[in-house]
Amino acid sequence: MRKSIFYHAGCSVCVSAEHDIINLVGSDNVEVVNIGEERSRISEAEQAGVQSVPALVTPNGNTLHINFGASIADVKG
Amino acid sequence: MRKSIFYHAGCSVCVSAEHDIINLVGSDNVEVVNIGEERSRISEAEQAGVQSVPALVTPNGNTLHINFGASIADVKG
Repeated sequence: MRKSIFYHAGCSVCVSAEHDIINLVGSDNVEVVNIGEERSRISEAEQAGVQSVPALVTPNGNTLHINFGASIADVKG
Repeated sequence: MRKSIFYHAGCSVCVSAEHDIINLVGSDNVEVVNIGEERSRISEAEQAGVQSVPALVTPNGNTLHINFGASIADVKG
């Protein structure tokens, strides 16, 4: 199975959701990307349809926005 | 592992998220509840912190609001 990608920006909402997603899906099945730190991957997240973080992009390309930590615009600053 | 509970109300956003969550977590690990039909479970969802559907309540009691289909108020009508 291809991995899902969990995009976050280090916010408390993001960290909580990250723990939940890893518990549910298994850490081997999720790549975790902090777009607050890995800023070169912000555009990749946007292209996947990520409008806010935390968000999970599934192996089939669907984007699940989970709770609400910060908008992409806020992460860009 | 205790099951997660996926609350939805039959909306298109809900159905799409349901497929994604079942693919990710496995259908054996999720109870799917349509609170638009099983209205007696609306209060249970509210007590778990569900403010909008679709939402996933994890085995440890955290509520993940996934995308946005409808508010609980809308489901109550």
